[in-house]
Formats: sequence, C-alpha cells, structure tokens
Amino acid sequence: MKIGPVRVIVWGLGAMGRLMIPMVLADPELRLVGAVSRRAAGRTVDTAELAGLSSPTGVPASATLEEAVERAGGADVVLHGTSSFVREVVGEIEACLDHHLDVVTIAEEMAYPWAADPGLSDRLDQVARERGRTILGTGVNPGFVLDTLIVVLSCVTAHVEKVYASRINDLSPFGPTVMRTQGVGLAPDEFVRRVADGTVVGHIGFPQSIHLIARALGLELTRVEESRDPIVSSVRRTTPHVVVEPGFVAGCRHSARGFVGDRVVIELDHPQQVHPGLEGVETGDYIRLTGHPTIELRTGPEIPGGVATAAIAVNMVRPVASARPGLLTVLDLPLPRGSARRRAEVIAGG
Amino acid sequence: MKIGPVRVIVWGLGAMGRLMIPMVLADPELRLVGAVSRRAAGRTVDTAELAGLSSPTGVPASATLEEAVERAGGADVVLHGTSSFVREVVGEIEACLDHHLDVVTIAEEMAYPWAADPGLSDRLDQVARERGRTILGTGVNPGFVLDTLIVVLSCVTAHVEKVYASRINDLSPFGPTVMRTQGVGLAPDEFVRRVADGTVVGHIGFPQSIHLIARALGLELTRVEESRDPIVSSVRRTTPHVVVEPGFVAGCRHSARGFVGDRVVIELDHPQQVHPGLEGVETGDYIRLTGHPTIELRTGPEIPGGVATAAIAVNMVRPVASARPGLLTVLDLPLPRGSARRRAEVIAGG
Repeated sequence: MKIGPVRVIVWGLGAMGRLMIPMVLADPELRLVGAVSRRAAGRTVDTAELAGLSSPTGVPASATLEEAVERAGGADVVLHGTSSFVREVVGEIEACLDHHLDVVTIAEEMAYPWAADPGLSDRLDQVARERGRTILGTGVNPGFVLDTLIVVLSCVTAHVEKVYASRINDLSPFGPTVMRTQGVGLAPDEFVRRVADGTVVGHIGFPQSIHLIARALGLELTRVEESRDPIVSSVRRTTPHVVVEPGFVAGCRHSARGFVGDRVVIELDHPQQVHPGLEGVETGDYIRLTGHPTIELRTGPEIPGGVATAAIAVNMVRPVASARPGLLTVLDLPLPRGSARRRAEVIAGG
Repeated sequence: MKIGPVRVIVWGLGAMGRLMIPMVLADPELRLVGAVSRRAAGRTVDTAELAGLSSPTGVPASATLEEAVERAGGADVVLHGTSSFVREVVGEIEACLDHHLDVVTIAEEMAYPWAADPGLSDRLDQVARERGRTILGTGVNPGFVLDTLIVVLSCVTAHVEKVYASRINDLSPFGPTVMRTQGVGLAPDEFVRRVADGTVVGHIGFPQSIHLIARALGLELTRVEESRDPIVSSVRRTTPHVVVEPGFVAGCRHSARGFVGDRVVIELDHPQQVHPGLEGVETGDYIRLTGHPTIELRTGPEIPGGVATAAIAVNMVRPVASARPGLLTVLDLPLPRGSARRRAEVIAGG
C-alpha cells in the first residue's frame, strides 16, 4: 500500500476530464500533478482553462504525457479518457506503462478489452506485468450498471438461470455528436441505412458487459448478438440540437444477447432517446436475475451517465494503485466503493 | 489458487445448514466432505437425515469437528452456522483454525466482529494469520443488503453525504422463536418492557453494517445508536404461530444511526412484522445515497433472507479459499459473485 496521496495525471480534458478534475482535487488521498491535452501544444495554460473549469488548478496542462510526467517530477496513476476503442487507446496506454504509471481508463472497450481485441489485450497484459503496472477499464456503462451491479447482485443467489437488464435513459441533454451517433431525428428507413453503414452506432460496450457477466458466473458463451432498432416517436420531441417529428426517430433501442448454444442466458437492453417521458417512459436501470431465488432491482431515475463514469474512474484510482500488475477487470479488484471524505464544495465548484 | 474442488465441511445442520448443503452438492467446484452437528453424537447417520433433506448425501454427520476432519481425510473450508454472536462462535472458529481450515461463518456479528468485541476480533485475526488461514463473516443482512450493496452503489458517486437504507420484510413464514424475539403479538407496553429486559432483540447486525459502510467510505464515526419500537397493528393479523389483535404488536421496527459528531451520516431501518401487506406496506429493500449524484435503488420484493444468506455463504467459499490469511470482511475480497454452473435440480431437490 502506497503511503501519502496518489499522484494523478488526467489525460484528456473533454467533458469527462472536466468532471474528473474537481473530484481529484476534492480528494485528500489523491493529488492532481498533471494533465495532458493536445490543445496545450505550444502554450502555457492552466489545466482548468482547457477543461472549462472556473477556478485555476495550479497545474499546467501539457501537450504530451512525457512533458506532463517531467513537469510533475513523477506520478502514479493516469486517469485516461480520450477515446472509446481499444485500438485507439492502446498506444497511449503503452506510453503510460513505459513511464511506469498505472492506468484507469474510461475507454468503453477497455472494460473487458478481450471482447474487442484478444491479441492486443494479451499484449497489454504482458507489457503491464513486465513493467509491474496495472491497467483497468471502468465507467458507468460498461463498467457498472449492466455488469458490475448484476454480478454483485448474483452473490445472493444459489443459481442464475438468466440475466436480464435494461437501462432507460434520456439523451435530451446531449449535443449534436450524440444525436448523430444515436440516429435522433432521422426517418426510420434512413436510421436503418445508417446502422448498416456504421454511422449510427448506439451504445458502445455490450460485448464487454456480457463477457464480464459470463466470466463472473462461469458461463461459456457460444455467441453474442447485438441489434439496433429505431425508437419511432408518435409525438413531437425537441431539444436545443434536434427536432423529432411524429413518425421520426427519437433514439436507438440497442440490445444484446449472450447465448449458450441456442439459449439466451444474458439479455441487455439499452433504449436511448430524447424525452422518453413525453410518451410515458420512465428512465431507470432495471435488473432481473432469474434463478434461485429470482431477484429484481431497479434504480429510479437512471444512474446519471457522465458524473457516474467520472466518479467510478476516480474511485478506482486507489485500488488500482495497490493492485497486482496486469490488465485487470473489475472482477479482479476488491469491492468497489466511493468516499465520504471528498470536499463536496470543490466537486460542486467544478 | 487451489486446484480441484474445494473440500467443504458444514458446521451446523439447522435451517441454514439445510439450505447450504444442496448448494454445495450442486456446485462442480465444491465438494461436501463432512458435516458437524451435536445431534450426531453416538450414532452413525447421513448428513441429510439431520438436515432434514430427502436424498442421502453419502456424507456421514459427525458430532465434533475433529471427527469430521478425520473422516474426511482433510478439508479446506468450514461453512459455519451455529450462533449469531462473536463470543459464542469464537471457540468453534479457533477449532477450525487449529485444523488448518478456512472459515465462512453466517454468525451475524462476524460480518464486522470488531463492532461487537474488538479484543476477541484482534485475537482471531492474529491466530488466523499465524495459521495461514482466512475467516469471513457473511450473510444477507448483515453482509449484503444494508452494507455490501450500499458500498458498491457508492462507487458511482463522487461524494456521499448521507446513507439511508430500509429493509421491509414479512415475518409471517417464521416460527415461534422469531415471533418471541421480535415481540409479535404482545401488547405495546409489554413490548417496551421486553426490549428493556433484552428478550425482544429485533435485528442482529446493525453495528456491523454501519461500521462496514463507515470503513468503506472513510467515515470516522463518533457513535452508533439503535432503537426498537413496536409496530402496532390496526387490523387482525394471524400466522400459524401467532395472532395479532388490533392494538397489539405486529413486529419490531428496529433502526440504527451512525453519527459523526451530531450529524447522522448513516441511517438504517429494518421494520420486521407479520403480514405487512394487510396495512398496505410493500416489502422490499430500499437504498438512498444522498450526494453527488444522489442515487436511489430498490428491490421488490425484498431479497429473501434465508436462501440469500445460504447462497452468499456458499458463494464466498472459493474466494475465501484463495484469500490472504486473517480475519477479513467483504471489503477485503474481490467483487462477490454467484454462479450459473450449479445444477439447479440439485438445489431445488433440497
């Protein structure tokens, strides 16, 4: 166990970096020592300015990890959030390992990277072990609602026959990129075309959640299927970025199924749309474990995506700093937990 | 990590042993090798007979642990369920350690034994370390609903300001002992007297749950308070063991509060009564974490007490068999999980 605060570098100063930085600053057991953003190239600028925070952090942003580590005079863990995909983050994660840093990343595919790229995952695991460093992918989904929470709930059952879970959220607060990748505002036939050509992507992380659950419960899956269907609105739904007319698409109902032979053993459902309440749909997270006993659980409203992803990432910093080396998953770490020690006013000030 | 099935001895063949044994038999990664019950003294009897199971287990029950270990020719973990209190189980647990066995116990106070007896707990921890063995206390409550589930949920928050949780269940299926210890059927003034003289006890485990949560969240509690109030019925409620007339006590509303100074930071509520539905009270488990963000979760109906306690104990056998030595809590172990590998028909047959 490390003595003293864990020294943290935040890599990526977008919406998630902006949420994570105040949480790190508020935590007496963490210390922000650096930040990395390409936008820092060629200038000297406080991290707060690039992250859109009102109070200066006193920590300059760096254009590269190397520069950040050098300025910090040493660090322990990188809180990483630059992209969703294993192939796009593997180089950055390896750079962290080369600097002898542990990594907590919110790249969705890294929650169980073997589901996306077993070869790259095994290589990352090997390099991490050689360097004596730890890598963890985390987030609210994948990483918590549709996997970790299900696994934990299963511990009070003697047998799990089937897992069903659904996360119903509201996309209304999000910007144009999310509207585009969820197909909001499209005609239904155009939605179908854009799913086919890959521009409507839906949720990133179903294979990760399904494989995490399967590994935890000892299920040997034979295949995983995903489907993306349009949620066609019967009313007018408007946000600052999109207008959905009746008969058009309010969002993407993305679902996934894990099979053992012909039997669906894990079924996850994630309908994402703007203003579900306009048609009487309540947001929330819902889990049903069919087995002995059958257990049902729900949250209401849904656990909020952005702040919860930032929080679980920050909460994983200390466990990762004292974990064994390797590319780990949430299944390998002690019971995850939050904190009552952070200064609430610092988090709120972000 | 141990190779091959973990060899299990079940100590205690009451209602909980009866539930655990079929779960062990159903699990390809566990092997039942012995059972201990004083009722086996002086006779040769299959474990199934003493546990009230219909199919023989092929494993004889033993009157003492020593006899069970000798008959088994070695074992790994004892699944222990004979009493609720640290002082009553410490001798039996030390006997397990002396035989180089790990222990998973459902004694309520053992979920966080320091809350009941710090001296005995430290001694158990020391002996366990010396013997290279692991001890864990677990169960549904304490052990899951009002602590583990709360802790896990906190991991998607940046800050926890206050914890509130309530477990509302139905005592109707239980026998005369539970009716007596919960004060069911008494006049309200008699209930108050029996709380005072200790014959109405309510729930066992609040200090354990509160200290587990506090330790996980980094709260330094200054005191823990408990209160036991009568749930006075306005209707007639009957079970095979008790009749509650209007104006009499249907159960015990037991609650507990953890303080930091004058501030209640953890509040747990567990009203236990017969037939709550007769007055429109729905059973269920409910958690609210006030903080950033605030999160609310509920199960419905409540996670069933008996089978869930047996299940979590059986699910903890493998993690405990490969854990570090010492007296541990759920906070020290990897993410708890169930299994989809057990033979459902064997569990159902129990």
